[in-house]
Amino acid sequence: MDDTSSVADSKAFLAFSTYATIVILKMMLLAPVAWYFCFTHKVWVYTNKLDDAETAEDVERVRRCHQNDLENIVPFVVIGLLYALTGPDLSTALLHFRVFVGSRLCHTVAYLLPLPQPSRALAWLVGMIVTFSMAYQVFRTAHL
Amino acid sequence: MDDTSSVADSKAFLAFSTYATIVILKMMLLAPVAWYFCFTHKVWVYTNKLDDAETAEDVERVRRCHQNDLENIVPFVVIGLLYALTGPDLSTALLHFRVFVGSRLCHTVAYLLPLPQPSRALAWLVGMIVTFSMAYQVFRTAHL
Amino acid sequence: MDDTSSVADSKAFLAFSTYATIVILKMMLLAPVAWYFCFTHKVWVYTNKLDDAETAEDVERVRRCHQNDLENIVPFVVIGLLYALTGPDLSTALLHFRVFVGSRLCHTVAYLLPLPQPSRALAWLVGMIVTFSMAYQVFRTAHL
Repeated sequence: MDDTSSVADSKAFLAFSTYATIVILKMMLLAPVAWYFCFTHKVWVYTNKLDDAETAEDVERVRRCHQNDLENIVPFVVIGLLYALTGPDLSTALLHFRVFVGSRLCHTVAYLLPLPQPSRALAWLVGMIVTFSMAYQVFRTAHL
Repeated sequence: MDDTSSVADSKAFLAFSTYATIVILKMMLLAPVAWYFCFTHKVWVYTNKLDDAETAEDVERVRRCHQNDLENIVPFVVIGLLYALTGPDLSTALLHFRVFVGSRLCHTVAYLLPLPQPSRALAWLVGMIVTFSMAYQVFRTAHL
Repeated sequence: MDDTSSVADSKAFLAFSTYATIVILKMMLLAPVAWYFCFTHKVWVYTNKLDDAETAEDVERVRRCHQNDLENIVPFVVIGLLYALTGPDLSTALLHFRVFVGSRLCHTVAYLLPLPQPSRALAWLVGMIVTFSMAYQVFRTAHL
């Protein structure tokens, strides 16, 4: 609306750039982790059809973690970009981005160690709620 | 080119925001659906290696539907964003976005019920054609 | 900073539009390729649980190639978009985009023929390095 709003908008966009890049890099780093598990378990093809159930478990876990990242980080990036362009309050936007990045880091740790179950589901849920909150804001602004 | 065009551009972008958010939320809601199928079928790990073929069929179908969404909605969001920024005619842009969102909703319904085959393939094809049509428009504008 | 920079920014964004669209269309075309393999091998459901190991190998390869594209092209598109908005030098930006698109085309060819292994891993590595280089540039500009 006025100059201040336009500056806040721009700062929210810069913040989005930083956090989106962090979370995307984290996702990309799962590919080397999957390789590492494949090598240490002497599984030479990164496939879904593994005979040894013990081996399959570890490699499958990394693969499912990567898939879960794709299914959650892609929506965050798309809706977060649109959200950043609606000119949100900077501190609110930072809160959204930081909570999401934190929840995904917790999710990956809980998936790979692995931690006992409620931890991973909670981390996933927090990420979902943040994305829905940003989607609500996008709908409120960009109604058609 | 002139002020009117710039306003239309902006409106096309707002329309894109709305429809992209709708279709991304639809994709995210498949995760709870997959959980629901896992619980009702007493499959406690959402994996690809299930012994009971009957059980596997339902859970696998949701998983494949989610994967198909990723493979089609990601291109739509990326190309749709670039298309919205080329300053298209608002009614043409709305037609593209609405047809795509409709085709993906039909695709999900056809996948999950499931409906007999030509329905799902047709819904998928309509979505592809919309994306290619927007890609053509992007190429015409952003030639290099 | 000044008019020249703003024009360069805009040109880098147009270049990004073109190359992002090319690489996304290449990814989408893997779906028909997967179908083709399914039909020629008489596999009527595009699933992960195939009995015939010989058949499974070819169809699985296309599926893994598609998945690998999703896992690498999505980060490129997101980080490339943010990178294009940091107002990079046009020739540097073009170098990044062209090398990435080339590396992914090589990766797909190496995956589908298939070529002997180091080729595919090298193509993948080049794409990763380009994405990391753009991410570094985004961090340098959009620090928070």
